[in-house]
Amino acid sequence: MDTDGLIALRRDLHRHPEPAWCEFYTTARILEELDSRDASCAVGPDALAGEKRLAVPDADERGRWLERARAAGADEEVLDRLAGGYTGLVATLERGAGPTVALRVDIDALARPESADPGHRPVAEGFRSEHEGAMHACGHDAHAAIGVGVIDAVTASDFTGTLRVFFQPAEEVVGGGAAMAKGGHLEDADALLAVHVGLDHPTGEVVAGVDGFLAVTHLEATFTGESAHAGGRPEAGRNAIQALGTAIENLYGISRHSDGATRVNVGVVEGGSAANVIAEEAHLVAEVRGETTELMEYVEERARTVLESAAAMHDCALETEVVARAPSARSDDGLVSLVADVARAVEGVETVLERDELGGSEDATFLMREVQRHGGLACYVGIGTDHPGGHHTATFDVDEESIRHGVEVLAGTIERIGRERV
Amino acid sequence: MDTDGLIALRRDLHRHPEPAWCEFYTTARILEELDSRDASCAVGPDALAGEKRLAVPDADERGRWLERARAAGADEEVLDRLAGGYTGLVATLERGAGPTVALRVDIDALARPESADPGHRPVAEGFRSEHEGAMHACGHDAHAAIGVGVIDAVTASDFTGTLRVFFQPAEEVVGGGAAMAKGGHLEDADALLAVHVGLDHPTGEVVAGVDGFLAVTHLEATFTGESAHAGGRPEAGRNAIQALGTAIENLYGISRHSDGATRVNVGVVEGGSAANVIAEEAHLVAEVRGETTELMEYVEERARTVLESAAAMHDCALETEVVARAPSARSDDGLVSLVADVARAVEGVETVLERDELGGSEDATFLMREVQRHGGLACYVGIGTDHPGGHHTATFDVDEESIRHGVEVLAGTIERIGRERV
Amino acid sequence: MDTDGLIALRRDLHRHPEPAWCEFYTTARILEELDSRDASCAVGPDALAGEKRLAVPDADERGRWLERARAAGADEEVLDRLAGGYTGLVATLERGAGPTVALRVDIDALARPESADPGHRPVAEGFRSEHEGAMHACGHDAHAAIGVGVIDAVTASDFTGTLRVFFQPAEEVVGGGAAMAKGGHLEDADALLAVHVGLDHPTGEVVAGVDGFLAVTHLEATFTGESAHAGGRPEAGRNAIQALGTAIENLYGISRHSDGATRVNVGVVEGGSAANVIAEEAHLVAEVRGETTELMEYVEERARTVLESAAAMHDCALETEVVARAPSARSDDGLVSLVADVARAVEGVETVLERDELGGSEDATFLMREVQRHGGLACYVGIGTDHPGGHHTATFDVDEESIRHGVEVLAGTIERIGRERV
Amino acid sequence: MDTDGLIALRRDLHRHPEPAWCEFYTTARILEELDSRDASCAVGPDALAGEKRLAVPDADERGRWLERARAAGADEEVLDRLAGGYTGLVATLERGAGPTVALRVDIDALARPESADPGHRPVAEGFRSEHEGAMHACGHDAHAAIGVGVIDAVTASDFTGTLRVFFQPAEEVVGGGAAMAKGGHLEDADALLAVHVGLDHPTGEVVAGVDGFLAVTHLEATFTGESAHAGGRPEAGRNAIQALGTAIENLYGISRHSDGATRVNVGVVEGGSAANVIAEEAHLVAEVRGETTELMEYVEERARTVLESAAAMHDCALETEVVARAPSARSDDGLVSLVADVARAVEGVETVLERDELGGSEDATFLMREVQRHGGLACYVGIGTDHPGGHHTATFDVDEESIRHGVEVLAGTIERIGRERV
Repeated sequence: MDTDGLIALRRDLHRHPEPAWCEFYTTARILEELDSRDASCAVGPDALAGEKRLAVPDADERGRWLERARAAGADEEVLDRLAGGYTGLVATLERGAGPTVALRVDIDALARPESADPGHRPVAEGFRSEHEGAMHACGHDAHAAIGVGVIDAVTASDFTGTLRVFFQPAEEVVGGGAAMAKGGHLEDADALLAVHVGLDHPTGEVVAGVDGFLAVTHLEATFTGESAHAGGRPEAGRNAIQALGTAIENLYGISRHSDGATRVNVGVVEGGSAANVIAEEAHLVAEVRGETTELMEYVEERARTVLESAAAMHDCALETEVVARAPSARSDDGLVSLVADVARAVEGVETVLERDELGGSEDATFLMREVQRHGGLACYVGIGTDHPGGHHTATFDVDEESIRHGVEVLAGTIERIGRERV
Repeated sequence: MDTDGLIALRRDLHRHPEPAWCEFYTTARILEELDSRDASCAVGPDALAGEKRLAVPDADERGRWLERARAAGADEEVLDRLAGGYTGLVATLERGAGPTVALRVDIDALARPESADPGHRPVAEGFRSEHEGAMHACGHDAHAAIGVGVIDAVTASDFTGTLRVFFQPAEEVVGGGAAMAKGGHLEDADALLAVHVGLDHPTGEVVAGVDGFLAVTHLEATFTGESAHAGGRPEAGRNAIQALGTAIENLYGISRHSDGATRVNVGVVEGGSAANVIAEEAHLVAEVRGETTELMEYVEERARTVLESAAAMHDCALETEVVARAPSARSDDGLVSLVADVARAVEGVETVLERDELGGSEDATFLMREVQRHGGLACYVGIGTDHPGGHHTATFDVDEESIRHGVEVLAGTIERIGRERV
Repeated sequence: MDTDGLIALRRDLHRHPEPAWCEFYTTARILEELDSRDASCAVGPDALAGEKRLAVPDADERGRWLERARAAGADEEVLDRLAGGYTGLVATLERGAGPTVALRVDIDALARPESADPGHRPVAEGFRSEHEGAMHACGHDAHAAIGVGVIDAVTASDFTGTLRVFFQPAEEVVGGGAAMAKGGHLEDADALLAVHVGLDHPTGEVVAGVDGFLAVTHLEATFTGESAHAGGRPEAGRNAIQALGTAIENLYGISRHSDGATRVNVGVVEGGSAANVIAEEAHLVAEVRGETTELMEYVEERARTVLESAAAMHDCALETEVVARAPSARSDDGLVSLVADVARAVEGVETVLERDELGGSEDATFLMREVQRHGGLACYVGIGTDHPGGHHTATFDVDEESIRHGVEVLAGTIERIGRERV
Repeated sequence: MDTDGLIALRRDLHRHPEPAWCEFYTTARILEELDSRDASCAVGPDALAGEKRLAVPDADERGRWLERARAAGADEEVLDRLAGGYTGLVATLERGAGPTVALRVDIDALARPESADPGHRPVAEGFRSEHEGAMHACGHDAHAAIGVGVIDAVTASDFTGTLRVFFQPAEEVVGGGAAMAKGGHLEDADALLAVHVGLDHPTGEVVAGVDGFLAVTHLEATFTGESAHAGGRPEAGRNAIQALGTAIENLYGISRHSDGATRVNVGVVEGGSAANVIAEEAHLVAEVRGETTELMEYVEERARTVLESAAAMHDCALETEVVARAPSARSDDGLVSLVADVARAVEGVETVLERDELGGSEDATFLMREVQRHGGLACYVGIGTDHPGGHHTATFDVDEESIRHGVEVLAGTIERIGRERV
């Protein structure tokens, strides 16, 4: 597929943004595209370890998106295979003896509205989101297009070996990485490439090895006490909001660690029913991070102790659930050098940085660690793109020129791996 | 109107429960009922001091209920007069020289669903709520009927003087009392009676003087800080959820007072947007009470200091709003004796308690204090009624026999006041 | 002994104030006084249930006071019997058949300096405290003198029956009442009188029945964690000061109770060793009170949960110790009337109040409840006295005229009990 | 002075350990030692900027140590010059034209007892601390000896230029650095060397440039409220312990910073007087640190906001005082290389590390930054020494062989600076 075709695909996906585990149209659309190619596809339950999915929305929510996908013309038979929120796919291209190389691209959108400003290119050129309250504000539409483009470029190349492209759902909620990593398609991978556009790097700049992923866990906690009339019988209550208050204060009080950076945040709270009722239930969503997985686990363990003790203090029951999780990871030197080398030769690429720090979290790290655990190499590649608004904002957009950069850097690297057995 | 008529009226209101400041059908229905009587009615903005209304819902919410009232057949012209949530009315019956006696009945329902159990009498006899999510679960439908019944009974009596019946909206949110007390219709009142059915007293029992109202204020507080990426730039945030946590802990820590009982509760909290974002906004609704108005004011003042300091501590802005308020009040001995005396003679009343404690809050206290401030007397009367479920629960219902008890106790007392110039 | 003798005794005790469980000189001095009388005395371990003593100071502290008592001329043989802090005595006067009447007076002083102002009567008249840092600032010196005076007055009267006077140690720390109540000398008591001078009532005023004692418990809690260098290895610490902070916030947050007044206070805190060390140990002394013993127990139970959870939250060990305890109690109507009756006839008594509220705590309640539990009657009598400074302040003093009032009211009541078998 | 002389001096100082601002004997002893040398000495107020001293103990405490110094034979005239806690001295050796080189050694001891174990060398060889509760547990006795030794070694060398040795008091409380830096003797320094023995490096190992000093501030905060009887009038109190509790919780909750490591600790708390009294006063000592001075200032600013808001919340007054402060600093590459070079040639030195991280705080950084601000170079040198117990523990001791290493590394470096005009 030529660049224009990839741009058209990207714009179609941009018009149909779908949030985590609801990428029904997206999955069907990619599948349709690959239908005419050599790649064999594992879809839905066959693509991932279903029980490892995190932050799956409820059936009502999924139903609404399924309906939209249907209305947008997605293939009914494919939709059937994705039922239950088993979205995403793994495309495999067999090209004879040689190394197995994996490429991971993520495909989900964000639950936020897109700008309607006439100056916003998707508006001006007619591919703004058709779904109110959802938007491809992080470039995963371009990632999906790059994934398809790489299949074509590798098909057209001398590469021998096996290429597997992972079209991963639910990255934005840090909920899809574990399921893809453990879905059985990564076991024989000798190398893994992951890709992200933008990240505040302009078009023409490539980061061969992105690093500095903080390991992260999102914990939901629910305190359940007992309601009582706050005027008439306050002593009869078991106060879930008091437990919440104690938890907030003490979560932020978790000690720093001398081994490196850690983070803790209570990002969402909700509780109680009325001013005059001792609250029966209160709820929080907390995030813990660490520069390494070990540091994150240190904070998580302390956070669990705080939550349990806050519940005990106010005689409440506690339920916790991990709703997102990703480890830290590091790009391997060997692959980084190779990517840098290839990138320097790509037309339009003017600057190549060997390494840069992300400072956030990404569940591609699950796949990176899985491959590294088996003795393979992994590398997370940044493809610069001019973006008018910041990531996750209403005016985000990608410079479509960078799609070609991405395809050429990645396909070129894959060819080299095939040739050099890195 | 005979008892059957009152029961029919009560059941019609029960079928059309309306929450605070949305009593459109209810007001129109009572007005229609009074149309055939001698009483002159001040309606909507004429009945109350509009700027003293608290907890008025937004225009959308009011619009929905207005639409329902229209669909249920309420008089269009009346609805026009109530526009903007000016519900309720004051009916005046002029009967020559003599004292002015006020009766206050409240007319609003609760925002909770009613039981659909076949054994629940409103279901069995076909007058269950027609509005999902709203229910007369506290007997105000019976109060309204009693109000109409008293007008009829006094009309039929030898009473000379003036009777004013206050059909008050928004008691459940403690939001209508001040507006009615300051609406200009209470200035010449020599005596005020207020009435409530049930309160855990069975049919046949009357409490001549209910006391023990706790003064109450509901405060909404909103902390506004600044969001930031919790992993990438936590120091850039001004954390509204931390301010909230500090506020919760310290509100509950407000010192007890040696002059009498106080209460404090944080009944509702909400804040933040996502696990990985430092929360920009957090919100709480707190309730403070005191055995006297002074004690309530002591707690409220300390609560405000806590809220302000919690905001300052986390560099957040604070907005607070009083969304409900009622003072304490006490029934006057003279009236209590009179009510008790009358009640003992009412057929079906078997037990008369001079005094009992409520232990909750009620904004009838605004009207009681207004009358007492002018030198008049006030009394809050409890009319027992068997109720299968507790107040505010899905299976609450009144024993309609108690409607007659209420009418006779109150009308009898009013006649005696007219005769004896209490 | 005439009034001058009692005043001389009171002044001698005033010169030798001794704190809880160190009343060595005081006990020996009273014993010496009683030597010449008919009363038989149970001393030290024979007077009380040793294992029920609370807040006993350590051996060093006791040793220092023992030394002072020796230096002040206390009888060596008596001091031997008090070794280990078994102070106090019970004097019994057998006067034939008749009821057993108990009188309880407390004898300990406070650990605070006395005013050196020339206008302070003990200074002007030469009986200021000889022990720096200790002072009879609550009138227990006068109580002891009243106890001796009552023995003399009853001896001189027609009383038949048995009189037992309990000279109780350690009231100020609420630590002696339980031990005296369970010492075996109260089992046959038909009536108990307790007495306190002052309480903001002037000379000439008597309160026949003091009430409103709050039940109280003092809890010492020690959190033990692990120290660590706060800069180099903060994560290695288990932070006792954080546990303390969490405990403080949540102790004050214990819910009020609808059955009546409760109190909670953290009165003393101490912890840590240096700014740059995570604190290994932190300590608090908290007080919980209730209008009834049940209410106090409610607060105590919640307080224990808070302390345990705060320790668990910060991975600290917790040790708690009850260092003071007293229940609530109420003076019996029968005795109150009798005391009032007698008081009205005492020369110099101008006002007799039947009842007044104390609003604090007193461990005489242990003795009152013990007697009441056996079916006897109890009454706590207040004898007004002009006091220049407030109770527990540096300029407190008693108007010695009130000593005679106390003796006559109490002895008169005891005679009446003997005569009337109340 | 030969090595034996330095060891004898070190042991004499070890026998007479003196805490911060009480180094009376120590200062006099060093002065006496230098008397026979060419160096001119600025002593006491002439050596430092008196108003910049932090954590100076009160006059009683200073008086006790002055008395001990006198008893130990310190020169009366010298003691007079140190009155008021102006300890320490700056010795200047003028050796003609050339660069000015400063050497900083600290001389204070710790307020902790020394081991009495017969196996502890100071016990075995008779130079254990003669002052109960004080000990040279961090090697500053050796530092002082090294300072004297360097003067001798430089005197015996070809060095031309000026040498200034700063014998600095009060390092352990991070209280002397600023006063020495601003005392006027550092203005013309071209280079500064500072030295520490041990730091977990064995004898024979030298760290040419110690880094990783965290900037630090110690803040004392006192909350002053109003006491009240906790049972009788709790509402009348303004509770300093509640303010303390709120401060503790929120100090630990200060957000991490994305620019680097920060620390916060509440190391000491104390407050209140009795269980039944609302606390009038409470006190804390907190420490804030940052990887850079800016990061420390970020935490300090937030800490001040927390303290002020906690005070305001509980209606208490707040007083804060900085009792210790030190910035971060970094050893300059040029000097580090030179020290490493010299060290490699010293007999007995087997390992030379160019750089190592301290991870704690040191107020030598004030002197380092002062010199660097003027365009000079600074370097903090670590001289390994086998120490049986850890720094600040009861069994700490230095391997006296390292004194010679220190002298030779430092004097050698100074000579090279003189020769090479680094």
